[in-house]
Amino acid sequence: MKRSIATVSISGTLVEKLTAIQAAGFDGIEIFENDLLYFDGSPADVRRIAADLGLEIVLFQPFRDFEGVSTGRLARNLDRAKRKFDLMHELGTDRILVCSNVSPDTIGDDALIVDQLGALARAAQEAGVIAGYEALAWGRHVNSYRHAWRLVDAVDHPNLGLVLDSFHTLSINDPVDEIAAIPGERIAFVQIADAPKLAMDVLEWSRHYRCFPGQGDFDLASFTARVIETGYAGPLSLEIFNDGFRAAPTAITAVDGYRSLLFLEEETRASLAREGKPAEKTGHLYESPSAPVHVGFQFLEFAVDDTARNQLIDWLTRLRFRRTGQHRSKDVALYQHGAASIVLNAEADSFASAFFMQHGLSLCASAFRVDDAKLAFQRAAGFRYAPFSGRVGPNERVLPAVQGPDGSLNYFVDETPDEPTLFEADFVLTDANGLDEAGTLTGIDHVCLSLPADSLNAWVLFFKTAFGFQAEADWLVPDPYGLVRSRAVRSRDGSVRIALNASVDRHTAVSESLSMYRGSGLNHVAFGTADIFSALPEFIANGLPLLRIPRNYYDDLAARYGLADDLLDALRAHNILYDRDERGGEFFHAYTEQLDHRFFLEIVERRGGYDGYGAANAAVRLAAQAQQKKK
Amino acid sequence: MKRSIATVSISGTLVEKLTAIQAAGFDGIEIFENDLLYFDGSPADVRRIAADLGLEIVLFQPFRDFEGVSTGRLARNLDRAKRKFDLMHELGTDRILVCSNVSPDTIGDDALIVDQLGALARAAQEAGVIAGYEALAWGRHVNSYRHAWRLVDAVDHPNLGLVLDSFHTLSINDPVDEIAAIPGERIAFVQIADAPKLAMDVLEWSRHYRCFPGQGDFDLASFTARVIETGYAGPLSLEIFNDGFRAAPTAITAVDGYRSLLFLEEETRASLAREGKPAEKTGHLYESPSAPVHVGFQFLEFAVDDTARNQLIDWLTRLRFRRTGQHRSKDVALYQHGAASIVLNAEADSFASAFFMQHGLSLCASAFRVDDAKLAFQRAAGFRYAPFSGRVGPNERVLPAVQGPDGSLNYFVDETPDEPTLFEADFVLTDANGLDEAGTLTGIDHVCLSLPADSLNAWVLFFKTAFGFQAEADWLVPDPYGLVRSRAVRSRDGSVRIALNASVDRHTAVSESLSMYRGSGLNHVAFGTADIFSALPEFIANGLPLLRIPRNYYDDLAARYGLADDLLDALRAHNILYDRDERGGEFFHAYTEQLDHRFFLEIVERRGGYDGYGAANAAVRLAAQAQQKKK
Repeated sequence: MKRSIATVSISGTLVEKLTAIQAAGFDGIEIFENDLLYFDGSPADVRRIAADLGLEIVLFQPFRDFEGVSTGRLARNLDRAKRKFDLMHELGTDRILVCSNVSPDTIGDDALIVDQLGALARAAQEAGVIAGYEALAWGRHVNSYRHAWRLVDAVDHPNLGLVLDSFHTLSINDPVDEIAAIPGERIAFVQIADAPKLAMDVLEWSRHYRCFPGQGDFDLASFTARVIETGYAGPLSLEIFNDGFRAAPTAITAVDGYRSLLFLEEETRASLAREGKPAEKTGHLYESPSAPVHVGFQFLEFAVDDTARNQLIDWLTRLRFRRTGQHRSKDVALYQHGAASIVLNAEADSFASAFFMQHGLSLCASAFRVDDAKLAFQRAAGFRYAPFSGRVGPNERVLPAVQGPDGSLNYFVDETPDEPTLFEADFVLTDANGLDEAGTLTGIDHVCLSLPADSLNAWVLFFKTAFGFQAEADWLVPDPYGLVRSRAVRSRDGSVRIALNASVDRHTAVSESLSMYRGSGLNHVAFGTADIFSALPEFIANGLPLLRIPRNYYDDLAARYGLADDLLDALRAHNILYDRDERGGEFFHAYTEQLDHRFFLEIVERRGGYDGYGAANAAVRLAAQAQQKKK
Repeated sequence: MKRSIATVSISGTLVEKLTAIQAAGFDGIEIFENDLLYFDGSPADVRRIAADLGLEIVLFQPFRDFEGVSTGRLARNLDRAKRKFDLMHELGTDRILVCSNVSPDTIGDDALIVDQLGALARAAQEAGVIAGYEALAWGRHVNSYRHAWRLVDAVDHPNLGLVLDSFHTLSINDPVDEIAAIPGERIAFVQIADAPKLAMDVLEWSRHYRCFPGQGDFDLASFTARVIETGYAGPLSLEIFNDGFRAAPTAITAVDGYRSLLFLEEETRASLAREGKPAEKTGHLYESPSAPVHVGFQFLEFAVDDTARNQLIDWLTRLRFRRTGQHRSKDVALYQHGAASIVLNAEADSFASAFFMQHGLSLCASAFRVDDAKLAFQRAAGFRYAPFSGRVGPNERVLPAVQGPDGSLNYFVDETPDEPTLFEADFVLTDANGLDEAGTLTGIDHVCLSLPADSLNAWVLFFKTAFGFQAEADWLVPDPYGLVRSRAVRSRDGSVRIALNASVDRHTAVSESLSMYRGSGLNHVAFGTADIFSALPEFIANGLPLLRIPRNYYDDLAARYGLADDLLDALRAHNILYDRDERGGEFFHAYTEQLDHRFFLEIVERRGGYDGYGAANAAVRLAAQAQQKKK
């Protein structure tokens, strides 16, 4: 399948855009007229630059407000079209996108429009180009692909085709099934965009909030599956209007776009397979190794120096973690409690030390236990996440890894029966009894990452593509110094959960308190326990400093949930927060104070199938942290 | 008139909020329940802190989903209300806001609601408090103040009043006239918020886009005038939900809020006066000296060091500016051409040198010619803009000045017949013929300021309040590296125009090209000319470097406007941009290259009453500048 992207989708000058688009792996581009207008060179120059990069110019766009007009205006519009056809020859493209008329004085007469589109088709034929007619969701008279197709079908001319755009179809909940019945050769072009579901004017929504497939809420696989069924042989082309993308680094956005198309092809292939469609119909769609069925946290690895290591060891010890191993060839120590494994990496002149220099005490790697590490790695690398290999000592395990959006490492680990485990292979295990399966903590419940503003989309795409994780709906949390947008991703069986938090306000650089959201950052690690009311006193007795929760919170809790007084007293006594879901599932959780203003730990207990993260309590936690810092 | 603000309107911890609100000048506060919940102290502590600051707690809010419920739920809701009444006693406030029910299962039966609100009123009476009932614009059954008032009126109980909120009324275009007929003593509270007109879900609009009076599009003066007519004696209270404010510095936002209330009172007073309402009705509303009727640019003052001075002098000379004066006591030079005066300030250890150290070559002061400088200053200072006085030599003029939002100075200048002019008083005029009224340039057409993201609202408020300027509608300009939001302000007669540009994307700190929008920044100064086609060749011959405009722009211009070939050739030859308004007014403008990547100059000619700024060409200019920088 040819993969294309509209130049409007990413930031930069036209040359920067084309260079990044080529580097990302795309086959073709749509040239957006304004990009050409602003380029200081001729259309022939653009043609040459694209050709030098091996990029095909698959479309020129847009041509507006052509049809449903008076006879006088039709003549002018045809003149206008012919000038654009000339330009297309210089540019070396044979296809132009004609959007349905949005003018208030459009004449809503299908017969007239068919006549006028016929005139356009004949002009296109003379010029040797194809005009593609697209229904804008806010078109005055024509706003559905079904209406546009009836008109194109009635014109019945080889130089006039239909353009499909997933946004224009899915934003108005237009059913996609009828797409499959359109002959593929009559589809001139297919544009793809995802978007979050938003209750707003569709034009504004389209112009500012589109995003790459997999980042929004649309069922793009069903849309694309119907397109594939038509036999359409042209490109799938991303056309994204997104305020964040307009300001983000060009190359990174471009490669995320490419990944999102691969992912869409994979999802489309799966969707067609589920429907029992023959495999030869989908042979041209991207296929990657399946996402791992089972994923668990193997360990979390922190980049530390001596000071940070001592700090962390102090906290882990208070949580009754034990030092269970020392790496065979590196300055790396293993701490364990229950199924939770933490690795502290202080190796000089290593990836970890470089990460520490850049970010300070931070999560430099996450290791994921999977059924087949090699396959999992191949999948992630196939989605263009950069492979990483570090130094490996004799007999130590080579762990396949890719870099995440912030440059941190993601290892894939599997174990083979009767062979040494990863920990046995790489570590001298110093505490044979350390791995206490029946510990107070049961394991890593979830990890929360703090992201720079606007990088949420990139991270969601990373976990969805490379790991096959699912993304939950996002929600906004008020911080005393701004809003935080949070979205969680999780493995299919829920054993790995990662909450992604990004400042909405993009004031991270100026707001003192929000500095903790800056750059690469673990925000917190939540450890699970089966009984938080016995676990916490144990840790507190060990000196673990818990975040003090305002007393008013508990009064409000009483009013909201009608909790028994003794339960309330116990919550209050240990600064435990409480949440309850609609089905009666309960969540008990407590936070430590912040370590070095960057991160903290959480202890959580889930009851009755509670499946969230205590979102309702995030605001009180943020306010309590802000007050703690002011002291 | 008592002035109040809801704690939710600004950022920070509760104590930070109260401190900033007091410092800004407010009399009272609405305590938003979450702020109390997140505060680590008792309601009595909050009462004491507020009292120590001299702030009255005028309202506690919100109480939700009380009315239109089953009998069983009513009992629970009354219990809930009584607990809140207890809390209010601790807090020391007698008023609570009850919003109309938004629950899908609300019973839409007015008689039932009147009964239930009656029960609430009796409970309030027992507790000695007042419940205020407010129609949310998205209330399930009650969404208009007129409906809410019918219910409150029917209950007819002294402990139940009506709460008015300008957003809930104006967002749904609810007519305001009927407010005037409500008895003032039945109005329990009045909340004020402005907002830009946006086509989106009203709940989302309300929660994220409210702003201070004068910053949005609502006709708040008419709303407030009707409130004043009722005889309402309570506070006007700002209740603003704004994502930007949540992240902005607390103290600055608070004082902007206070200014906006003063401005609203002034506008309301004027509105009532226009309607012929007796003055005693409005005696409690803020009154400031009238805004100056005539305002002109007296001079623009640049902070320079030797290098920057030489650069600027070089450019000014190419534009045929002449050095016409040397300051009597400071290292300050005057350059003039036509009615355009530029002052270069290199005085050591001065305001200008401090400004230069912080911002480099920059606009450190603007002087405005007004009819009465003292009055104009009093007005600006009355709106709490900080007065400034610098060193003044013997016989030199003392210029009243206030600091703008970026700390730059704004001088007010008037001239008295038969007395030395400002320039004569302060400068040794070295070129008696320098002020060439018939020069190629006619004066300063407009100034464009580049602002940090989210400061647009503060600047609009500054020019509207301190100067009485009018604000035009805002528009978005695509920059190759992000979106720029632009809004122009202008004096009533249009002789001073200032365009304000702020990055929408708040990525200014990370995007290389947008660094030019950072911090305090003049973006450009536009000089007017009566004949750009003769002016430009003269300047070009003098060596003025013009920004090269892409040739494709002119091809497109031909297609859009059908311009004659010789006109197009002339535009192309001199890199002149062209715009035309709906009434046939025309705009011709050209830009210089950028000076030190911070700013540049523009030469403009207006024909036929053209009144804009060539907005349609901003994107091509930004792209051309980005390409220039890449070379």
